Amino acid sequence: MSEVSIDNEPLVRFLNKLQPLSPAIIDFALKETFRITVKKNSLIDSVQENSKECVFFIIKGLVRGFILDEGKDITTWLTQENGLIGTIRNPGNTAPTYFEHLQAIEDSNLLVLPYSFIDKLYVQFPESNILGRKLLAIHYHMSQERSILSRIPSAEARYKQFKDNHPTIKFRIPLKYLASYLGMRIETLSRIRRRAKLNS
Amino acid sequence: MSEVSIDNEPLVRFLNKLQPLSPAIIDFALKETFRITVKKNSLIDSVQENSKECVFFIIKGLVRGFILDEGKDITTWLTQENGLIGTIRNPGNTAPTYFEHLQAIEDSNLLVLPYSFIDKLYVQFPESNILGRKLLAIHYHMSQERSILSRIPSAEARYKQFKDNHPTIKFRIPLKYLASYLGMRIETLSRIRRRAKLNS
Repeated sequence: MSEVSIDNEPLVRFLNKLQPLSPAIIDFALKETFRITVKKNSLIDSVQENSKECVFFIIKGLVRGFILDEGKDITTWLTQENGLIGTIRNPGNTAPTYFEHLQAIEDSNLLVLPYSFIDKLYVQFPESNILGRKLLAIHYHMSQERSILSRIPSAEARYKQFKDNHPTIKFRIPLKYLASYLGMRIETLSRIRRRAKLNS
Repeated sequence: MSEVSIDNEPLVRFLNKLQPLSPAIIDFALKETFRITVKKNSLIDSVQENSKECVFFIIKGLVRGFILDEGKDITTWLTQENGLIGTIRNPGNTAPTYFEHLQAIEDSNLLVLPYSFIDKLYVQFPESNILGRKLLAIHYHMSQERSILSRIPSAEARYKQFKDNHPTIKFRIPLKYLASYLGMRIETLSRIRRRAKLNS
């Protein structure tokens, strides 16, 4: 395996920034992970069985997480290129109240990291626990931002914070998904956007 | 140091369930952590300088995290006995948009874990990275629950989910803090509670 092909792997580049990876870990990861493509609007589940047993690295595209609350679809998570999305296992005992579904909202290329691979990684390469710890801290912060975002009383301030944190994807997300993510009605989001355009 | 005193440490009991701790780690933790008491309504900052450089384990009491958004106080985090609260460092580059303050809402006893101690722990006892990884996954899930909770459209359903997840603290939290945590007005929360009482 040539240096160039390793360096081309977007996941390896992403992880190397957090924690330098040994060639043995990179080899192992290239062997045990694989790519899938998911068409726009498809559920990840329809392409990858047992998607709850995996984490996905987005090579290209945009994926949302959503829950169904009494039939209502609420977007709870949005991840674009070079981000991870998927079920994060809970070592505590509390079962999550809601199941989060994953859906591509653009044609997407994903790298699949099965938990079976991640578990082997932690055992065979103990230093990968440092990487796991750092990744989970990053996920914590993204979740924390989502959690704080939704508690800001002003709809306008929520949209502004989202725009500031995600400058490149705000026009790639269908209005109905973004509105539920921001906890506002579609009409409110449209009005805020029109006003923002007039003022820019 | 006797077995009994080690076993009495609530933090050690809490961590041991996640990952068995070696006697050397326990000794080190007992040396490098310390207790503080914080009066009801006091900011943790007023007792512990540089509180951003620490994590707190709650031995007794109740602590909230809150942000100030244009002068408005919004409760974003609630933790009771046997839970951890505090700034979680972000290995990614994005600075948090809001600073989270910590305030005791009952007379509280806290164990202070300075990050200087945590950093030494990770270096001197590499296996503690496993523990760190598991703790961060638990924190991720608590944050995720907070994030999903606030996106549930019905105020009644938000209160119900909170009650189910926190059966023991719902009457220990002043109404104004709980209302902002649940993203509703105080009057709405009072009405929901009165109705819940009538139906029980």
